[in-house]
Amino acid sequence: MKTLLPFASDYMEGAYPAILERLSAINTIPQDGYGTDGISETARQKILEACHCPDGEVHFLSGGTQTNAVVIDAILRRYEGVIAVSTGHVSIHEAGAIEYTGHKVIELPQHQGKLAASDVTRFMENFEADASKDHLVQPGMVYISQPTEYGTLYSKKELAELSEVCKKYNLALYADGARLAYALATPENDVTLADLATYCTAFYIGGTKCGALIGEAVVLPKKGLIPHFFTIIKQHGALLAKGWLLGTQFDVLFSDNCYEKIGKTAIEYADAIRKGLKDAGFDLYFPTATNQIFIIMANQKLAALSQKVAFSTWEAYDADHTVIRLATSWATTKEDTDSLIACLKKL
Amino acid sequence: MKTLLPFASDYMEGAYPAILERLSAINTIPQDGYGTDGISETARQKILEACHCPDGEVHFLSGGTQTNAVVIDAILRRYEGVIAVSTGHVSIHEAGAIEYTGHKVIELPQHQGKLAASDVTRFMENFEADASKDHLVQPGMVYISQPTEYGTLYSKKELAELSEVCKKYNLALYADGARLAYALATPENDVTLADLATYCTAFYIGGTKCGALIGEAVVLPKKGLIPHFFTIIKQHGALLAKGWLLGTQFDVLFSDNCYEKIGKTAIEYADAIRKGLKDAGFDLYFPTATNQIFIIMANQKLAALSQKVAFSTWEAYDADHTVIRLATSWATTKEDTDSLIACLKKL
Amino acid sequence: MKTLLPFASDYMEGAYPAILERLSAINTIPQDGYGTDGISETARQKILEACHCPDGEVHFLSGGTQTNAVVIDAILRRYEGVIAVSTGHVSIHEAGAIEYTGHKVIELPQHQGKLAASDVTRFMENFEADASKDHLVQPGMVYISQPTEYGTLYSKKELAELSEVCKKYNLALYADGARLAYALATPENDVTLADLATYCTAFYIGGTKCGALIGEAVVLPKKGLIPHFFTIIKQHGALLAKGWLLGTQFDVLFSDNCYEKIGKTAIEYADAIRKGLKDAGFDLYFPTATNQIFIIMANQKLAALSQKVAFSTWEAYDADHTVIRLATSWATTKEDTDSLIACLKKL
Amino acid sequence: MKTLLPFASDYMEGAYPAILERLSAINTIPQDGYGTDGISETARQKILEACHCPDGEVHFLSGGTQTNAVVIDAILRRYEGVIAVSTGHVSIHEAGAIEYTGHKVIELPQHQGKLAASDVTRFMENFEADASKDHLVQPGMVYISQPTEYGTLYSKKELAELSEVCKKYNLALYADGARLAYALATPENDVTLADLATYCTAFYIGGTKCGALIGEAVVLPKKGLIPHFFTIIKQHGALLAKGWLLGTQFDVLFSDNCYEKIGKTAIEYADAIRKGLKDAGFDLYFPTATNQIFIIMANQKLAALSQKVAFSTWEAYDADHTVIRLATSWATTKEDTDSLIACLKKL
Repeated sequence: MKTLLPFASDYMEGAYPAILERLSAINTIPQDGYGTDGISETARQKILEACHCPDGEVHFLSGGTQTNAVVIDAILRRYEGVIAVSTGHVSIHEAGAIEYTGHKVIELPQHQGKLAASDVTRFMENFEADASKDHLVQPGMVYISQPTEYGTLYSKKELAELSEVCKKYNLALYADGARLAYALATPENDVTLADLATYCTAFYIGGTKCGALIGEAVVLPKKGLIPHFFTIIKQHGALLAKGWLLGTQFDVLFSDNCYEKIGKTAIEYADAIRKGLKDAGFDLYFPTATNQIFIIMANQKLAALSQKVAFSTWEAYDADHTVIRLATSWATTKEDTDSLIACLKKL
Repeated sequence: MKTLLPFASDYMEGAYPAILERLSAINTIPQDGYGTDGISETARQKILEACHCPDGEVHFLSGGTQTNAVVIDAILRRYEGVIAVSTGHVSIHEAGAIEYTGHKVIELPQHQGKLAASDVTRFMENFEADASKDHLVQPGMVYISQPTEYGTLYSKKELAELSEVCKKYNLALYADGARLAYALATPENDVTLADLATYCTAFYIGGTKCGALIGEAVVLPKKGLIPHFFTIIKQHGALLAKGWLLGTQFDVLFSDNCYEKIGKTAIEYADAIRKGLKDAGFDLYFPTATNQIFIIMANQKLAALSQKVAFSTWEAYDADHTVIRLATSWATTKEDTDSLIACLKKL
Repeated sequence: MKTLLPFASDYMEGAYPAILERLSAINTIPQDGYGTDGISETARQKILEACHCPDGEVHFLSGGTQTNAVVIDAILRRYEGVIAVSTGHVSIHEAGAIEYTGHKVIELPQHQGKLAASDVTRFMENFEADASKDHLVQPGMVYISQPTEYGTLYSKKELAELSEVCKKYNLALYADGARLAYALATPENDVTLADLATYCTAFYIGGTKCGALIGEAVVLPKKGLIPHFFTIIKQHGALLAKGWLLGTQFDVLFSDNCYEKIGKTAIEYADAIRKGLKDAGFDLYFPTATNQIFIIMANQKLAALSQKVAFSTWEAYDADHTVIRLATSWATTKEDTDSLIACLKKL
Repeated sequence: MKTLLPFASDYMEGAYPAILERLSAINTIPQDGYGTDGISETARQKILEACHCPDGEVHFLSGGTQTNAVVIDAILRRYEGVIAVSTGHVSIHEAGAIEYTGHKVIELPQHQGKLAASDVTRFMENFEADASKDHLVQPGMVYISQPTEYGTLYSKKELAELSEVCKKYNLALYADGARLAYALATPENDVTLADLATYCTAFYIGGTKCGALIGEAVVLPKKGLIPHFFTIIKQHGALLAKGWLLGTQFDVLFSDNCYEKIGKTAIEYADAIRKGLKDAGFDLYFPTATNQIFIIMANQKLAALSQKVAFSTWEAYDADHTVIRLATSWATTKEDTDSLIACLKKL
């Protein structure tokens, strides 16, 4: 079987090598269970330091959908829903995991994958003015993704505006950072970890799609926000007996600028691909600067492409074109990138 | 800091070495996501073969509580509950994860941690005779653990009896095999994987506590029992993007008799400790033959013991005694076992 | 305090007089509990007869939101969601009662409050074509209201088309008939109870808004569709001890053409109001023929109107206009209708 | 068909006559919807006055199971469970309605249907001492019934003791008063409505089993305990459009000492029956002073009894005896009581 050039996603390979090395090094050393071990504690401190919020809390979970469901359910009251754009991961790609916890996802329009503060304001103004508002789901949180599901980025200004609206209407602001490493490594990005800690009620730093085997680090800038979060995590079936498996990976990711390096590699190759696409005359679905590239591809070229390249089919663009996605990661190589570009030019 | 002798539990260390080696070997090879990869498929086939049910299904999940919640919720109808002994893991140690999915755990008495078929029969007879039974939770499943939370074992005869009662009353029979490797490796055990596949509607083969980093393998002997189980797993936040992480570990565990070896090591050392305890005059809480040993320890000896040994405190026995647990695992060494026995004799 | 002309809604008054008379007549006669009484059984037979589906089932519940939540949760599997228009009662006005049961409401566009079969087809085609469809909420049901929340009506042809799409994609079709009496009594309506029984998997005949004190009658044309529905109703807290309270009301409503008379009275007065509005030059939000009338009213006239008339404010139309609703019912009188028309003409 | 003497339960007949009269009197007067009407407000004030807690809140719901599920779910946090005796209504007779909301019912032993404060203390001491307590359901509430499901009564002293334990361990104390009228009317009862308001976090005053058609009045002695309770009620499908239907009934029940009279009638007849049973040599299951009487009846007498009397079969006592229940209500007559006693004496 011929091997395809691996650009289908950023979670196709294992872990950034330093992670496996570290796991091997500590393999026979007994650790305390359920994340109460020393390595996890060290990792938490490193993350809080990186976020400039030493008094916050960090909790490790396994994957993105799980993290969203646990955090949203833990923060919201039973009668509250979460506002998200219609293309948000919680809105469509989590098999109803949020609704399973009893909460409605209130969908607002997306703008290149992003939520506009003005849309939230308008929604809340209408809500507050609605005579029957007690008969409606009470909005309790705003969910955003940084970068978004379409690889676009919130600017610091946009984040601040969302934060302001949320404060005004007493909504929690939660950022899904499944691919945060790639946002942080994008030159035009101006939102730091510290900014997220400043503006968000909660956010998570993605591991699974950013070099870890599994794992997401939930940051709660304000300690004690979620009483009994440990028990809540257990109740959701999300507590690992070997919690140090998550802590250790984040300890590696937040040592020696690992998380930055992982992002940087992916962005460099994504930039190279973007340049190649432009040279070859392809249209982007919309411009992105992170590790995901959405291309409007003529359907007649798809068969040829799929002979050489592993990519993701996103959605139909029109009768003759399809939106496809290419993604780079820490595991992308120069050789594969060059081959991909050559292949695209020949299509 | 002095290192304690590691007998607190069987999930304190990492993974059976062959697992980490394999993960390292495939680290940069792209795999299909969400468990649709080839290695996971091979692992499923090996497990089905070991269970003598080639037409069944295998699904990989991350941990025990998660697996119990997902499987029980997927099999039960909304108005059904699950019968378990009062000391069952689902009854007490899962922070209400089963109730979180909307199902009652109907608690019956335990006999050395085990559920008696006769108790299920009596319960069901009363239920069926109850004029108001439509106002009650409808029993839909029986949950057992093999070995139990107290390290005891169901015999093949007991399992067959439970299976018969379940068939009579149209109840699913589900076995939690979090520590199944240790049951299988116990000389007096007469319940094989094939027996579990014969008698149970569903069961899981434990990884986390039996040599894997994380992972449990759910076996459904009858294909198609749970429609859309993939989506259900996702909905519970239990679907790993890198599903091959679980599949690969089980592929190793079910190659070269790995799973058997892991169990055997633990049982040998547990037997040595049992002999040492007997020689030293300690009372067992009740006799077990698997890797967990429950000891009635005078409270005045606990402080001294805890200076040398990492163990688990189970429950108060009486005013002067406490039930403690020692556990062995694949990671237990002869050296540590000998030191432990020496320490116990000196107490 | 001056009494306002009562056009705020169709549930502002008590019960159609014959209902209170009947309740008084049987008040001291003991009845079997939980709807197992003879009167309820008679009422069920009368309803099934009216629906031309003698082999179906009827279950009585208390209110609309409760009925929707119980029926939708009972029919859907855990991983399924329900399709509804964005203005559907389940989408917005039930405080998240459907999501509380764990199911997503998948919102499609509305056309004068109605769902187009072509929109369902397009949605299902996209769903089936989606490579990641196992990661999405599985559509399991289509929800419609007859009449809709905006008082509009599905024609028999539209209902048949929806039914066809639902059959093609294996979706249940459920009709919310909170105001069904008014639909049935509208001259241009061509959808009978028998048609609903033919085309729907389940529907309910509204009582609360159609002359009963409380009560909705769920019709399941195919017996046995929902196993243990009695227990499910109890589990939702929706089973009345005095179930005959519901059964008796429906027994009255389905005797002596009561349900028809109730609807007819309301439609006659609504028609008179529509004529008055036209004469007075008011614009309707969109044309309706049932008992709800949505008017685009200049904001400057609202204060004057509210001095005389109890109406409902629906939504802002533009900066200067508001959509208001007037509703008639069995309790509407000629005198009040004439006064209302006179008042509207003077505004 | 011969009519049986009606002692099966206290919810077999309609409403205390004054209630139907009042409903008829206001039948055509429009009321504001969803319990925001003036009559409901008056009823709330009367109830708060009767409870000596003018600053509390009252909310009307339809039935007992619904009320328990809504109140328990509204007060508990997601990770908390409710403590109840194993014979508590929430433990067994609600078809899992509490678990449906995601909360475990933690069952403690019953003493003639009652919960002992000492059992709660012991449970909480063990819980607090449990090293793994974060892995357990967190106890958040104690549920009791006054009178209990077996017709027994908590004394003021017992209630105060329970309240003290609850305060010590930060548990809410909730009393189910489905049959509260009968407790209040029992001569030996020393717990008043004001005592319930003093000692409980929440309780409900039963209507359905105490003379109303439907309806239970939830009393929250401390205002604001449950934010957005209106929306929560709606979310549970428990909000009636015609909320005044509930309010009006309680307005009648709390006027002219109605609620007291209803209870008194039932207790007088129950006392007469108890005397008759004693004279006839029957054994009570245990002594009760309220409107429910539990009798140990030889199985051979059941057939004869059931020819004359409508009663409830409770449970098997031994191979030859069955526990049956007789209940009186506001609707019980002297004539029927005399006939019942005569019948019992002839058995």
